[in-house]
Amino acid sequence: MVTPDRPIGIFDSGLGGLTVARAVIDLLPHEDIVYFGDTARCPYGPRPPEKVRSFALEITDLLVAEGVKLVVVACNSAESTAFYEATGRYEVPIVSVIEPGVRAAIAASRSGRIGLIGTEATIASGAYDRVVTATGADVVLESRACPRFVDFVEAGETASEAVLVAAEEYLGPLRESGVDTLILGCTHYPLLSGAIRYVMGEHVVLISSAEATASEVYARLLDLDLLKRDATEGRRRFITSGGEDRFGELGRRFLGPEFDGVEQRPWQLAADRRAAS
Amino acid sequence: MVTPDRPIGIFDSGLGGLTVARAVIDLLPHEDIVYFGDTARCPYGPRPPEKVRSFALEITDLLVAEGVKLVVVACNSAESTAFYEATGRYEVPIVSVIEPGVRAAIAASRSGRIGLIGTEATIASGAYDRVVTATGADVVLESRACPRFVDFVEAGETASEAVLVAAEEYLGPLRESGVDTLILGCTHYPLLSGAIRYVMGEHVVLISSAEATASEVYARLLDLDLLKRDATEGRRRFITSGGEDRFGELGRRFLGPEFDGVEQRPWQLAADRRAAS
Repeated sequence: MVTPDRPIGIFDSGLGGLTVARAVIDLLPHEDIVYFGDTARCPYGPRPPEKVRSFALEITDLLVAEGVKLVVVACNSAESTAFYEATGRYEVPIVSVIEPGVRAAIAASRSGRIGLIGTEATIASGAYDRVVTATGADVVLESRACPRFVDFVEAGETASEAVLVAAEEYLGPLRESGVDTLILGCTHYPLLSGAIRYVMGEHVVLISSAEATASEVYARLLDLDLLKRDATEGRRRFITSGGEDRFGELGRRFLGPEFDGVEQRPWQLAADRRAAS
Repeated sequence: MVTPDRPIGIFDSGLGGLTVARAVIDLLPHEDIVYFGDTARCPYGPRPPEKVRSFALEITDLLVAEGVKLVVVACNSAESTAFYEATGRYEVPIVSVIEPGVRAAIAASRSGRIGLIGTEATIASGAYDRVVTATGADVVLESRACPRFVDFVEAGETASEAVLVAAEEYLGPLRESGVDTLILGCTHYPLLSGAIRYVMGEHVVLISSAEATASEVYARLLDLDLLKRDATEGRRRFITSGGEDRFGELGRRFLGPEFDGVEQRPWQLAADRRAAS
């Protein structure tokens, strides 16, 4: 029995899915969340599709055993292995990270020319092309792998000369091809959107799969009457199959800045009182 | 002398500008930031424009005295009081929260019908209309005040019946008017984008002023050769003119979820080893 008080499950091969977790927390701060990062077996990209599919099913089993009410597959590789078609076996709804981004891009595009960037494995899998085709929309998808982007994000490098040179190399051809919408088809990429927008120009609409997926989670839970009803702050659990150290170090970077407190400047108010008197 | 090692200054009448701070931190994690929230005098909206303008100049003076290299006016009310025109007096560049959102919306709109939502004070000020007119773009701006949205966000209420009823009341007419792009013209609103998207439908592109402004900051610092060069994590200072308690309580909500650590499930890896052997 799936009930509103259960947590939302989110999984990824690694840490990138934390951008999705954060977008979900933004929209639904009261919801409990269980995040599973399969960092011990990350990246999935180079592995045989059947292997990745079995990993994805294994983790979904684990999340369902934890009692989640919905599972977010925040992993492009997992989705591209026909895992999604296998999801009929679960009682809980499964939300993908690919479909919401594709639908948002189709809605946003004026010219029907949509760009897609992702890892080499994601682009080679053709998963986005299949989803675009399945929508029946009259659009053209121009895809481009950006192999070094994940390393830049994980190194906290977002505005260096090397980032900008790589961004120009990867994105220049997309810009020249006239796409007016660009899907960030990797959960790491929202953290590079400053460089991506700089190179693409501000007339190109960037679609963050993380935000589109969070909106999908919101809508699905609302439609299924599965939103948590009490208004306490949600509990969040982060589980890793690998070492805690790396997860912890990068977790803060992905989940958001720390808030360490605040300084008070009461004199500012005093000055105002003087001015008003 | 404005140099790359200086912090970025951001101010708002209150806490909403923290969504802008967070977007800037996402794109530029190495940059130091000084945030000033004038919570003692918040909200600015009901105050006479001349008063708000003097507050904005006073705070900008304070940030410049702190040695910032760029100031972000993350406050719609401040910008709508002709403060922006007064910024010629500063050596450092001043980035507004209105212009980047307007430019992004004009770029994204297919039909030229753009929606704008904001507080009553922002909508009544006509500040967005003036910026749209100044661009010379052939677009129509349909504006709508959403007075209760700020309270919902500050109460952490994002998916309740009351939120959805209010969202339908405010946004229904905008949806019916056929806008294809919607500017979230208040820094609180990105946290309600689940409800906003649900009511508007996914064919409407939502423009977050916070993200658009962060991209503008990235581009301006890059163009001016003012990006910080060393790759250490940035230091962030949050200053309030009012009480620390409320700032601290809401600060976490605005700046992003806390990351409290991670559980390890090494058995997952062990299971994989068994499967692989």
